[in-house]
Amino acid sequence: MTAQTISAAFYRGNKTFVVEETKAAEPGPGEVAVRIAYCGICGTDMHVYHGNMDARVGLNRVIGHEMSGVVSGIGEGVEAVQVGQKVVVRPLVHCGECPACKRGHMHICQNLKFLGLDTDGAMQQVWTVPAHTLHVLPDDLRMDHAALIEPVAVACHDVRLSGLQPGEDVVVIGGGPIGVLVAMVARDAGGNVVISEVNPNRLAIAQKLGFDTVNPSEADLTEAINKRTGTKGADVVFEVSGTQPGVDAMAAVAATRARIVMVAIHATKPHIDLFQFFWRELQLIGARVYEPQDYEKAISVVASGGVDADVVITDVSPLSDIQHAFEALDRSPTAMKSLIKVGADA
Amino acid sequence: MTAQTISAAFYRGNKTFVVEETKAAEPGPGEVAVRIAYCGICGTDMHVYHGNMDARVGLNRVIGHEMSGVVSGIGEGVEAVQVGQKVVVRPLVHCGECPACKRGHMHICQNLKFLGLDTDGAMQQVWTVPAHTLHVLPDDLRMDHAALIEPVAVACHDVRLSGLQPGEDVVVIGGGPIGVLVAMVARDAGGNVVISEVNPNRLAIAQKLGFDTVNPSEADLTEAINKRTGTKGADVVFEVSGTQPGVDAMAAVAATRARIVMVAIHATKPHIDLFQFFWRELQLIGARVYEPQDYEKAISVVASGGVDADVVITDVSPLSDIQHAFEALDRSPTAMKSLIKVGADA
Repeated sequence: MTAQTISAAFYRGNKTFVVEETKAAEPGPGEVAVRIAYCGICGTDMHVYHGNMDARVGLNRVIGHEMSGVVSGIGEGVEAVQVGQKVVVRPLVHCGECPACKRGHMHICQNLKFLGLDTDGAMQQVWTVPAHTLHVLPDDLRMDHAALIEPVAVACHDVRLSGLQPGEDVVVIGGGPIGVLVAMVARDAGGNVVISEVNPNRLAIAQKLGFDTVNPSEADLTEAINKRTGTKGADVVFEVSGTQPGVDAMAAVAATRARIVMVAIHATKPHIDLFQFFWRELQLIGARVYEPQDYEKAISVVASGGVDADVVITDVSPLSDIQHAFEALDRSPTAMKSLIKVGADA
Repeated sequence: MTAQTISAAFYRGNKTFVVEETKAAEPGPGEVAVRIAYCGICGTDMHVYHGNMDARVGLNRVIGHEMSGVVSGIGEGVEAVQVGQKVVVRPLVHCGECPACKRGHMHICQNLKFLGLDTDGAMQQVWTVPAHTLHVLPDDLRMDHAALIEPVAVACHDVRLSGLQPGEDVVVIGGGPIGVLVAMVARDAGGNVVISEVNPNRLAIAQKLGFDTVNPSEADLTEAINKRTGTKGADVVFEVSGTQPGVDAMAAVAATRARIVMVAIHATKPHIDLFQFFWRELQLIGARVYEPQDYEKAISVVASGGVDADVVITDVSPLSDIQHAFEALDRSPTAMKSLIKVGADA
């Protein structure tokens, strides 16, 4: 059997992608080949583009993990999926041996491999992955929309860990791509959601998505939330900004016993008002990536229209234009989610 | 009916208590008079002694809330207790109207009154309190031991909110009076407890109480905990130190998805490694005072010997010596819990 020739986009360092022909990897035992339809550009991919992750990804890496596709080949022993099924990949491979895995926290395995960073990813026409990473999609789900399932699964994980109940007051601090997805999933779960964001372009998108917003550089966020909630404060807060003002605000807007979910990656160690955590029995809940049930939830949220995919997806480019797509996203003040159309027939 | 003459210790400012005769307050409707047996000196009482809380307590206040006593009089409409019953007081009076109360969080009511600070307290021979604050004790419980129930209830609240399961690894950061009580309650609940403490006197007491200890100024705490737990880390961490090194350590020693309970009062806003909360999905849980079930648990822990009361109680002084008792506790390097024997017949 001759290996199939496919197009793939290689990151070669220095903000450069090169699209070349390569051979598709044949699925080995327990593996599945997926013909990629679409692949979104994640914030992490943008970090790769900027050269911040060269030590991890190297200079000949196919990146990409926010994908949709169709099963095109099946390795020995795989029974869970069939050729032709629409799928997404949950791009996590755990070791099974570390204390985190042994306690059932495989998604935060201490030796976690992230497919599309630690291995080649989905910015190629055929991606071969372990079968256990696949989730099957409904036949009628649009494949461009399905490329949102990975980031929506992040949001579903965040919302699930928050324990959000219908009718609760929610504040999302930071209205970027992940923030608006968290807001939409929280709204879909019955939350009364306000988005706090300083960027006017992002505020406009949040409003277009139907959210009440506060610009904390123009109005007092705590006062606004207290007014909305009769001085109670927010039952659930998502800190998605990664900033010191966001950390200050997350405790200030919280109701007694509020749950504050730490979604953002804080590269520095901000100051935190631990007295407020003590005094009002606040909870801080770290949340990273997703577990299988978050993927299943994300599929159902995207399929049911709980996420307004057509507003979130602001650009679609063919794989041959990937270089321009990264350049455009990097300088765009209004882009939310850019997709790469990888498959010619997607 | 002539009001009863009793002795009471009045805080008059400037590190001064004066014991004077006064009239016992008659119990009004819904109130109960309690003849006080013992009353412990709390860290908060020590803050009052140092003049840090004059604005709140004033200069003619009977303080004290870590008490044991016997019901000596009952106001109109009180049916839950009878004269002669041994009791302790849960010294919290909530408003019932604020958002916290309406959500069932009466113990962190936004208008909470703390008896013995915002009202007169237990450093007097008869203390009149709302009946709803009382918990009845077993007849055979020693009254000096029963004076530990209030701080033990703090520890029971902390341990309950941690969700500690038998067999889990626990680190208590800070081995002062509250730290050792938290450690004993956690051990009683089945935890494998290590106490981290820098003070040699406190380390000696912790060891006398049977705990493994680490002095983080002499050994690497994270390394020690990783070694004990096969690199897993602690499932539950109690931060009782109120220090920046304690905040650094609480995340460093934590296992994936560990629960970190914020027991300490942090007067400043420390730096916090929020990346670790995200990366390993740590949870931070604020815990303040107690709820009724924590008092019931504390009564059973003290009654069953789960707390080694005879080691924890390091001094007992008569009410007439209260001035000396505060002075001695203030300068003692080894004291844990000092009790005032308030009742002549206790």
